[in-house]
Amino acid sequence: MTLYGYWRSSASYRVRIALNLKGIEVRHRSVDLKAGDQLGNAYTQMNPQALVPLLELEDGTRLSQSLAILDYLEETYPQPPILPASPAERAQVRAAAQVIAADTAPLQNLRVLNHMRSTYSQDNAAVKAWAAHWITKGLSTLETTMHHNNHAFYLSDTPGYFECFLIPQMYNARRFGADLAPMPKLQAIRDAALAHPAFQAAAPERQADAANL
Amino acid sequence: MTLYGYWRSSASYRVRIALNLKGIEVRHRSVDLKAGDQLGNAYTQMNPQALVPLLELEDGTRLSQSLAILDYLEETYPQPPILPASPAERAQVRAAAQVIAADTAPLQNLRVLNHMRSTYSQDNAAVKAWAAHWITKGLSTLETTMHHNNHAFYLSDTPGYFECFLIPQMYNARRFGADLAPMPKLQAIRDAALAHPAFQAAAPERQADAANL
Repeated sequence: MTLYGYWRSSASYRVRIALNLKGIEVRHRSVDLKAGDQLGNAYTQMNPQALVPLLELEDGTRLSQSLAILDYLEETYPQPPILPASPAERAQVRAAAQVIAADTAPLQNLRVLNHMRSTYSQDNAAVKAWAAHWITKGLSTLETTMHHNNHAFYLSDTPGYFECFLIPQMYNARRFGADLAPMPKLQAIRDAALAHPAFQAAAPERQADAANL
Repeated sequence: MTLYGYWRSSASYRVRIALNLKGIEVRHRSVDLKAGDQLGNAYTQMNPQALVPLLELEDGTRLSQSLAILDYLEETYPQPPILPASPAERAQVRAAAQVIAADTAPLQNLRVLNHMRSTYSQDNAAVKAWAAHWITKGLSTLETTMHHNNHAFYLSDTPGYFECFLIPQMYNARRFGADLAPMPKLQAIRDAALAHPAFQAAAPERQADAANL
């Protein structure tokens, strides 16, 4: 399989973690979002949405959207599982991931911030405040959700589906200056996840296309 | 089960369709988003994210996020299925749903538009143009995706998971004045879905809490 991604894309980061958790080896192809490669014909013919990641299977089938890719991996490489066994707990883990994947990250991704700058004449400070606002809102909700969690990770003693979303979002939170001090439970989950080799190998700075910062 | 929702919430509309497709009867409780009932303590104690829908199971477990609720329903009430059988096709249907659920609807929902008005001083016309921009972008991607589809619905001859997301989003498109003329394939899917009783019974205007417009 080939994963088209970008070192700093949080959705690519999610899929890298999941692949590592399941021990699946893939070829990596970089799509340089800063250079606009995702908007070129070569890429949009593969993914008309012009977003990364994109997972190309051996038969040429292309899968987009990180949530869908994670569910595909869970269905086709069930060991080790990244979702709980009970349907209600699976739904709770998926819902927590979607607080990030649907209600947080899409509001602070590159194309949205660019649109605010270009069409709504917002300066860098205003755009950064917008991103920090939605990140804080999403993570605060999840901090509350974690009050009912009695495991090292969400509903699990090993990191899985939710942590694939949480850790990249907390990485972005730092970039945008969101205050994580009121989120000790999420910080504890992040610190535990970052001790795991699957998360370490997926880190943006560890990718071949990472820019010198 | 009890579904907390709102007649005009597109995420509530999605879950109503899925319940109808599977023939599941639930109690409906209205959360009046226009009056701000989702922000009150009574509701946020049930769902700290202050969004609808929320599905309460008979044992008191509460499930939020429409994607997660649909997957829960598919796992616990497998007949009739709303996802294809093959993992790759399941992933493609889920990804198309997520183009709406993650990359379109969250950018045009009430809390985001309110934040643009209050904190970014945008007037109604600017806010409406913002919503129409993201709706057009999301639906255009899906129109292109449908070029490879040879079924009445996406990868299926009966409406399912994807159509639960598409039809509410096209309903919103009309509200925000997005131009659907360049999307004949999506319009054909919508028209076929709207002929189905599960979609008719889920329509916003048919709900008990629908306001007189």
